[in-house]
Amino acid sequence: MDKHNLSPASFIGVQGKDIISFGSGQPDLPPPKEVYKILPHYSDFKYGLIQGQENLRNALSKQYPHSTADSFVITNGASEALDLTLRVISSYDHHLPKKVLITKPYYYSYPHMIKFAGMEPVFVNTKNGRIDMDDLRVKIGGCRAIIINSPSNPTGRVEAVDSLKEIEKIAQAQGTYILSDEVYKDLIYVRENYLIEGPHVVTINSFSKTYAMCGFRVGYLWSLDSKLVNDVISIKTHTSMNTNILGQEMAYEATKVPRKFIDDQLIIWEERRNLLYNGLKEMGFDLWNPEGAFYMMPKVDNALDFVWDLYKNYSVISYLGDWFGSPGRVRFSYALDVEKIEMGLSKIEDYLQTKKGA
Amino acid sequence: MDKHNLSPASFIGVQGKDIISFGSGQPDLPPPKEVYKILPHYSDFKYGLIQGQENLRNALSKQYPHSTADSFVITNGASEALDLTLRVISSYDHHLPKKVLITKPYYYSYPHMIKFAGMEPVFVNTKNGRIDMDDLRVKIGGCRAIIINSPSNPTGRVEAVDSLKEIEKIAQAQGTYILSDEVYKDLIYVRENYLIEGPHVVTINSFSKTYAMCGFRVGYLWSLDSKLVNDVISIKTHTSMNTNILGQEMAYEATKVPRKFIDDQLIIWEERRNLLYNGLKEMGFDLWNPEGAFYMMPKVDNALDFVWDLYKNYSVISYLGDWFGSPGRVRFSYALDVEKIEMGLSKIEDYLQTKKGA
Repeated sequence: MDKHNLSPASFIGVQGKDIISFGSGQPDLPPPKEVYKILPHYSDFKYGLIQGQENLRNALSKQYPHSTADSFVITNGASEALDLTLRVISSYDHHLPKKVLITKPYYYSYPHMIKFAGMEPVFVNTKNGRIDMDDLRVKIGGCRAIIINSPSNPTGRVEAVDSLKEIEKIAQAQGTYILSDEVYKDLIYVRENYLIEGPHVVTINSFSKTYAMCGFRVGYLWSLDSKLVNDVISIKTHTSMNTNILGQEMAYEATKVPRKFIDDQLIIWEERRNLLYNGLKEMGFDLWNPEGAFYMMPKVDNALDFVWDLYKNYSVISYLGDWFGSPGRVRFSYALDVEKIEMGLSKIEDYLQTKKGA
Repeated sequence: MDKHNLSPASFIGVQGKDIISFGSGQPDLPPPKEVYKILPHYSDFKYGLIQGQENLRNALSKQYPHSTADSFVITNGASEALDLTLRVISSYDHHLPKKVLITKPYYYSYPHMIKFAGMEPVFVNTKNGRIDMDDLRVKIGGCRAIIINSPSNPTGRVEAVDSLKEIEKIAQAQGTYILSDEVYKDLIYVRENYLIEGPHVVTINSFSKTYAMCGFRVGYLWSLDSKLVNDVISIKTHTSMNTNILGQEMAYEATKVPRKFIDDQLIIWEERRNLLYNGLKEMGFDLWNPEGAFYMMPKVDNALDFVWDLYKNYSVISYLGDWFGSPGRVRFSYALDVEKIEMGLSKIEDYLQTKKGA
C-alpha cells in the first residue's frame, strides 16, 4: 500500500480481528432471514424481463405514488440505475448542455459515472454539509441534470425540505432531470423522507442499505417519465439484460418483511451514531451533526497523515475526504458494532495523545 | 403487435401451449442440478470483489492458458463484459479511429453496444455465413477493435481456423483489439473450439448457454492485457460493482460439473439441429449448414410476411433477418424439444402449401 496512492480500493480485502474499519459503506448486520427462505426450493433459470420481475415491480408500485409496475426498472444495484439513466440523458437532444450538477462533497462514484456517460460534472458548494442554495441558483441553469443524494454519503446530512421543493420547481421550469439517489432514505434520524417529485424526476433506490443485501446487487429506478423509463429498458436490453432473477425474488421477499425490521435497524444505527458522534466531539473534532445514512465527516488537520498513521500504527481504517471532493476532512462509517466503535475511538484518542506528545 | 414495428421484444412474454417458438435464444433444458445444491445453506450478503469471486476466477484460470485469477473479470452476463470492454477501448487515446468491425449478419446487440460506447460499427461482408477475408483485409485497417462471434448467433456458422489465425496476425501487427465472443464455444458440431490469442485479445464467455444459466447473468472476460483488465475493473467499480455473489457461487459449482454434462447436451442439440435442418431442406429452403450454437438462417422470400403470417395464423415464432442485418433471411432457434420442432415444421409446411394454393 502506498501512502500517496491511497483509494477506497486500497482497503478492499483488508481483514483481520485486529482491524477496526470505519471505512466500508455496507451494513454489517444480516438481511431479514425471510429473503433466504425461498432458496431451498428455487429452480428457475431462464431470462427474466429486462425491466424486472413483475411481482417485485408490483410490490414497489405500492410504495410510490401514482405508480404502476411500469414506472420501475430493476437494476444491478443503484449503481447501474444511475449509470443507465446518465447514459440515456446524455444521448438526448436537449436544450441544456451535457452537464450534471452534484454537491461537493459527493459520493465518490458520481464524477466518474458522469464522465463515463459523456457528460461533465459541475460542483455546487455546500454549507454545513447541505446544498448552498445561493450557489445552486447560479449554477443549475446550465445543467441538464442534477443528482441529489439525501441522506448523503459521505456527509451524513439530510437536505432541508425547502431546498428540495425549490429544486423541484427550478428543475421543472427549465426541463432539468433530477436524479434522486435515495438509497439511505430508510436511515433518517431527524424527519420522514421527503420524496422528490416531478415530470423528469428519476428516483434511485436499492435493497443494499435498508435490507443489507449489498452483495446481491438489486437496485431500481422509479420515474413517471415513461419515455426515459423505456429508453433505460432499451439500453439495458443490450448492456446487461435482466437483473439476476434469484436476487430479484429475494428482494421481493424483502418487500413483504414487516416495517418493524427497518424500525429495529434504525434504533441500532442511532445508538452507534450517538456513540461515535459524542466520542469524536469529546476529542474536540469539528463535525456536522449526522442526520442520516451511517457516515460522519469530521475536519482533520493533515488528513492524509491521519488516515495513514491510524491505519499503519493502530489498524484503524478511515476514508480520506479528498476521495469525496472534500480535502481537510475524513469519512467515518459506523457500520460496525458498538464494541468495535468503542475500541476504535480509544485508538484514535491514543493516536491524538501520541501526536500531541511528539 | 404491429407488423411494421416488430422486434425481438415484440415476442417477449408471448406464451401458451399452442405457441411454438423458434425465436428466443435460450436453452430450454435446465442447468446441472449441482448449481442449486448450495442454495439451502447460503447466508452471505456483503459486497464481493468487483473483479469477481476468487474461487470462480481460480477455477476459470485452469481452463485458459497462461492465466491466473487476475486474467478474469466476472460480469453481469457476456453483455456487460462486452459493454465495459467497448467503453474502456473507446476511452483510450489510440492511433486507430473509434470504429469497430463486425460481421453482417451480426448479433443484434452489437451495433447498439458499439454506438452506446461512443464508437461506430463498420460491417464486414460474409460469404456463406463466414467472414469474407477479402473484405476484412480492406476494412480492418481503420478499426480499433473487431468483434468475432464464432460460433455465430444468428448464422450458426463457425469461422475457418485459417481466417482466425490471419485475424490474430493482422490485429497484433496494427494494435487492434479482438473481442472474441465465445458464448457458444461448447456448442460446436464440426471441430474443437479455436481459442483466439494475442496481446490485445479479450475473450468473452458466460454460463448462460453451456450451463443454461441465462437468468442468473454470470458472464466473464478473459484477457492477458492486464491494463485493459484493470481499466474494466475501474469502470465496473462505479457502474455496477460486484456481480451478484450468489450467481457467482452457482457458476463456481458449474465449473466442477463433469464434462459429461456438456457432451450430453451436445448430443441433444445435434439431434434437434439435424431434425430442423433436414426438415427445412426438404421443404426447399436455401440455408447454410449449421455448425454451432443453436440457430439456422434460411433465405425466405418476403421475410416479413413469413414471420408475421406464421405467428398470426400458425402460432409459430421466428425472428426476422433484418434485426441481424440480414434482410431476406429468417432466424430459427432450435432451443425447443423434438416434438415441438416437428409440430413447427409441419405448420410451416401447411403455411407454404396454403401460400402456393393462393
